[in-house]
Amino acid sequence: MSYLDRIRECNAHDLSRFRPFLAGGVRVGWVKHGFAGRLAAFPDAFRVSESAVVLAPGLDTFAARTAAVDEALRRLAADGLITGWRDEPYPVGPSFRDPPLLQMERAAVPWFGVRAYGVHMNGYVRDGDGIRLWVARRSPDKPTYPGMLDNMVAGGQPVGIGLRENLVKECEEEAGIPPGLAARAVPVGAVSYCHETGEGLKPDVQFTFDLELPPDFQPRNADGEIAAFYLWPVERVMETVRDTTRFKFNCNLVIIDFLVRHGLIGPGDPDYVDIVTGLRRPPP
Amino acid sequence: MSYLDRIRECNAHDLSRFRPFLAGGVRVGWVKHGFAGRLAAFPDAFRVSESAVVLAPGLDTFAARTAAVDEALRRLAADGLITGWRDEPYPVGPSFRDPPLLQMERAAVPWFGVRAYGVHMNGYVRDGDGIRLWVARRSPDKPTYPGMLDNMVAGGQPVGIGLRENLVKECEEEAGIPPGLAARAVPVGAVSYCHETGEGLKPDVQFTFDLELPPDFQPRNADGEIAAFYLWPVERVMETVRDTTRFKFNCNLVIIDFLVRHGLIGPGDPDYVDIVTGLRRPPP
Repeated sequence: MSYLDRIRECNAHDLSRFRPFLAGGVRVGWVKHGFAGRLAAFPDAFRVSESAVVLAPGLDTFAARTAAVDEALRRLAADGLITGWRDEPYPVGPSFRDPPLLQMERAAVPWFGVRAYGVHMNGYVRDGDGIRLWVARRSPDKPTYPGMLDNMVAGGQPVGIGLRENLVKECEEEAGIPPGLAARAVPVGAVSYCHETGEGLKPDVQFTFDLELPPDFQPRNADGEIAAFYLWPVERVMETVRDTTRFKFNCNLVIIDFLVRHGLIGPGDPDYVDIVTGLRRPPP
Repeated sequence: MSYLDRIRECNAHDLSRFRPFLAGGVRVGWVKHGFAGRLAAFPDAFRVSESAVVLAPGLDTFAARTAAVDEALRRLAADGLITGWRDEPYPVGPSFRDPPLLQMERAAVPWFGVRAYGVHMNGYVRDGDGIRLWVARRSPDKPTYPGMLDNMVAGGQPVGIGLRENLVKECEEEAGIPPGLAARAVPVGAVSYCHETGEGLKPDVQFTFDLELPPDFQPRNADGEIAAFYLWPVERVMETVRDTTRFKFNCNLVIIDFLVRHGLIGPGDPDYVDIVTGLRRPPP
């Protein structure tokens, strides 16, 4: 197995199983054909054709679009189709920089193949010339990817909070990192991918941060989402990423990006160009 | 002006002005239609049609392909079309990891739209909490981009030398960095782009390195390619990249990548996602 296998797994998808989802006249996502059929039951929110799912005409404002879609989604959740409702609104729009056209419950976002954003942080400790990386194990009770390995801190990016503010909040809740220490996290880029799931499509962007921690810092989870933390020599992390699928799919990319930036995967790796390019995919 | 302008300039091209160039049955480049017409005069090397330029049948080995193409190129150089012959063979093939199908004189590579590779190094000095970056000014006598600003060390990647070895050699020749110091350069990734020039297309990859230098280190050029070195506060480098076109086109990307990795361009920049994604383009 190789790092490139992890990148390929994050990007495994077949667009022929989807049709475009349009809002405000622009494509903002992708919907599986079967789910499109379900959406036809909500003509106040969606107009469904063979070629696309389009927001219903007359939904001209952020509030109107959000309300119409929300009503449909709550009925789909009541029917048991959309599960894991979180009451976390995500932005829906053509890009991260443009104002969103509507907001949508996080649990529904992959069903609509809308690009989601998040923050992922590599927490590391220098150890002489070496590096140790903090690894989290997700709680066995988490609705998604229970028990899998994860980055030290990671969280989705809802509406109404800045990226940095969100990172500081997640640092405190997930790992007990005080705000003064979390403020030292350095933004170092982003990874992007397009991953198909049972529900739909995740053409997502994760903003990446590095935080060098003092050797004696001990993370403590406060929100019940993390079952354990491990401080592994980077070589063990590298083997685990390269040779196993124990990490949640997108956390592998965040670690591979760390390894590239810190010279731990170098151009001597025959896959180097494909790895470096593969960490950042334009959306479909 | 913005960082994104620099990325767009590096990627400005119109493939409708080109036709594919195939070797060994695979596309390895792109040729401008006018140049394709000139290549029809060399049927021992090329078969030219409206839709493609293909290596002549029967050229079944690396040596045979290289010799046939070289003979044609030397005649085109003698005719004054291909200028700036350097006697530096570049690899030609479908990817960096695969063995090349032939080698081709560097001066001819953009004419064939063959992907070229190089090494670019950011030399920097820590200054309290700040960073200063070494900037080179290219000699006014250089055949390409004379007098423009450049990264501290940069060089093309010919056949027969490893990337690290090439970087150490360029460090010594271009900036007088001794091998022991150059060995501390950290590989940190790569930038890629697709740039159209008068000759043809440059769908190139530059492997990037960072080297932190002692504050008292003074670069000295030995090969006549650099007219001067400046140690600029990073803020001045940022303004120059963002607001001017004084740097050679691809050096801007190497610096923008440095700024992203060091947190000096952060996700607060509205263009952040486009910048981060734009630094690494798959080849056309």
